Amino acid sequence: MKYAIIGTGAIGGFYGGRLAHSGQEVHFLLHNDYDYVREHGLQVDSCDGSFHLDNVNAYCRTADMPEVDVVLVCLKSINNHLLPTLLPPLLGRDTTVVLIQNGIGVEADVEALFPGIQLVAGLAFICSGKTEPGRVSHQCYGHINFGDYSCRNAQRLQALLDDFNGAGIKAGLVEYHEARWRKAVWNMPFNGMTVALNARTDQLLENPATRQLIYDQMLEVVGAARHLGVTALDSSFADQMISTTDSMTPYSPSMKLDYDFHRPMEIHYLYTRPLQIAREAGFAMPKLEMLEAELKFLEKNL
Amino acid sequence: MKYAIIGTGAIGGFYGGRLAHSGQEVHFLLHNDYDYVREHGLQVDSCDGSFHLDNVNAYCRTADMPEVDVVLVCLKSINNHLLPTLLPPLLGRDTTVVLIQNGIGVEADVEALFPGIQLVAGLAFICSGKTEPGRVSHQCYGHINFGDYSCRNAQRLQALLDDFNGAGIKAGLVEYHEARWRKAVWNMPFNGMTVALNARTDQLLENPATRQLIYDQMLEVVGAARHLGVTALDSSFADQMISTTDSMTPYSPSMKLDYDFHRPMEIHYLYTRPLQIAREAGFAMPKLEMLEAELKFLEKNL
Repeated sequence: MKYAIIGTGAIGGFYGGRLAHSGQEVHFLLHNDYDYVREHGLQVDSCDGSFHLDNVNAYCRTADMPEVDVVLVCLKSINNHLLPTLLPPLLGRDTTVVLIQNGIGVEADVEALFPGIQLVAGLAFICSGKTEPGRVSHQCYGHINFGDYSCRNAQRLQALLDDFNGAGIKAGLVEYHEARWRKAVWNMPFNGMTVALNARTDQLLENPATRQLIYDQMLEVVGAARHLGVTALDSSFADQMISTTDSMTPYSPSMKLDYDFHRPMEIHYLYTRPLQIAREAGFAMPKLEMLEAELKFLEKNL
Repeated sequence: MKYAIIGTGAIGGFYGGRLAHSGQEVHFLLHNDYDYVREHGLQVDSCDGSFHLDNVNAYCRTADMPEVDVVLVCLKSINNHLLPTLLPPLLGRDTTVVLIQNGIGVEADVEALFPGIQLVAGLAFICSGKTEPGRVSHQCYGHINFGDYSCRNAQRLQALLDDFNGAGIKAGLVEYHEARWRKAVWNMPFNGMTVALNARTDQLLENPATRQLIYDQMLEVVGAARHLGVTALDSSFADQMISTTDSMTPYSPSMKLDYDFHRPMEIHYLYTRPLQIAREAGFAMPKLEMLEAELKFLEKNL
């Protein structure tokens, strides 16, 4: 299968790099790093084994790229307004678009822009960063779950899983809504609270008041998910997420890094859209609503 | 009537000073400023007319003070654990104790310490500060509402109102629960939110997200009050508080000043107790609960 990577950063550089390294045909869209990567290739420093790609199919605009079987969208969701320009040249008659992005509601919004598009959600569990031009540093984890949103091609999904697993990336298939909401149980409390209180995950869990607050916020997400029919989630998953985080190395989620480096935060898909989707279905998440408001204030007054 | 002032700071210095200046017999408990005030008297700089008290009945412990008719407790509520030591020498057979303090639950807790005590709530609407030893600066407002909690002496209450009004302080009588909850409608959102987001009242109201959040929090307080039987309050009072604050000079509430000057915050009576009282009656205030947790975290990690 032919792959296109939209956004060759911490996520796209890692997954696309791994696929290319395993022998797949991968075409990379680059922006700032285009000249550098074209000349020097792509370096992936990884806890699972580092490697270098000498010859990278590098592009600075999708108009020059071929139609592909699979597009991996690895942009921050705040850049999704670029998709109407970026995607069309890559889409053939049977192209699958995988949104490896945070949050809830991205698929519905992309589908509204491209009616009939074949979408898959990609939920990445990974710590990685782009440390310098053409260089990705992968610190830990790395597995990815896919959730089928509107892919009409079962063989394609299986081939995707096979290619990822063949590239040494643990990949699984999870029911779409469950996949997105399951990840939100951790993401919604911790991304925002580390920003709102300028704190690490371990500090939030050490203080009894914020430990309870994080747990309450997790229960709001579980409640919304169940209200929307994701019955595989219940409060025991919140307990599990708390104890998993207790044993994690103190961690700055992506939103905290964005805030600290004065980059725009993914408030829309991490908070605004899921809150709206739950509210429209008749379920309120008051503490996460408050967190959304605080983040909007902090972003404006940064 | 004989008055005792417990806590001769921004509040006690102003109200006690005014009463003394109008000719009432007032005995002042001082702490750090005792020596200074004994020697130099008390200066009140006020937008309503400044004055100096040359001879102040100053004490550094209540054991040396006489029994009085009225005690005005003007301590920060975080110091109420001192009351079992401070109050007894001042209490005669028919002494009224006025708690000029922020929050909800102070009267119930003091009554538990002194069963049968005659308590009155004092709700001060005032901007004043202690700028240096023996010097109070009163910038604006100044009126006070009293709410009868357990005073069995109607004449005493009237005499209190007369003495305050006679000293040039606008004083009124409001039903106890309504008085405390009415003030909480402004206090609970703004005191905490100015700390949580390190912002002024005007900044919080300029941003649409936090303007809505403040309003939602006000509705939580109104909802709790109504649930507890205070039917005089409804959502129109929240609207009124928002528009009043729109026209106020940007303002740092007392909790923000406490936080900025690294003093302990009145979280207990401004948040913990009212939340608990509402919860026990079956009413939840989730956004103010979240604010309480954030404040507890910030106080510990200051």
